[in-house]
Amino acid sequence: RRSHMTVSYTDPQVSMDLLRAVLQPSFNDDIMAVFRKYQKFFDKAAENVKENVGDDIQTDQLIKEACRNVLEHAKQLFPEAEVKRAGPEVTIKRSRPADEDYS
Amino acid sequence: RRSHMTVSYTDPQVSMDLLRAVLQPSFNDDIMAVFRKYQKFFDKAAENVKENVGDDIQTDQLIKEACRNVLEHAKQLFPEAEVKRAGPEVTIKRSRPADEDYS
Repeated sequence: RRSHMTVSYTDPQVSMDLLRAVLQPSFNDDIMAVFRKYQKFFDKAAENVKENVGDDIQTDQLIKEACRNVLEHAKQLFPEAEVKRAGPEVTIKRSRPADEDYS
Repeated sequence: RRSHMTVSYTDPQVSMDLLRAVLQPSFNDDIMAVFRKYQKFFDKAAENVKENVGDDIQTDQLIKEACRNVLEHAKQLFPEAEVKRAGPEVTIKRSRPADEDYS
């Protein structure tokens, strides 16, 4: 999507990612604290799965996968823009069927 | 990786994901609270980028992308198992080059 792929310190994404990398350890601590609140639910669920399905279940891997999925779904808190909203020259695309006519 | 793809309530991944879906709204609230702690840093960085690069920068999109990247990197808190560790019959694969010989 970017017009040039040269990495430079004035590249907006690079600048923001430098900050992201600096903050990541603090974020990770805070995010782990959040997950600890829910740990018991995942532990219980994984134990239930193990009881129902069998002893070859690796509960720690099930829990980690669930945690990764939580983070993946949390990205929806920060949705990518489908349509550019800024700028007066940009018309907002509506998802109206083409054959619909209000005239 | 799974031997059958039929979705059932005894499927370990499905069971865990049902719990994940139930907890997701609470997780999202807690994760948003974490991000609010760092909001000012991202705001500041995005403003700097806009000053340096130009007014066609959409700061809100830069910030959202950075937040999604935080979540992506946080997944490393819950790493996927490269090698099965459980079970005595599993030998741990070492990443030793094939031509390396200690004999």
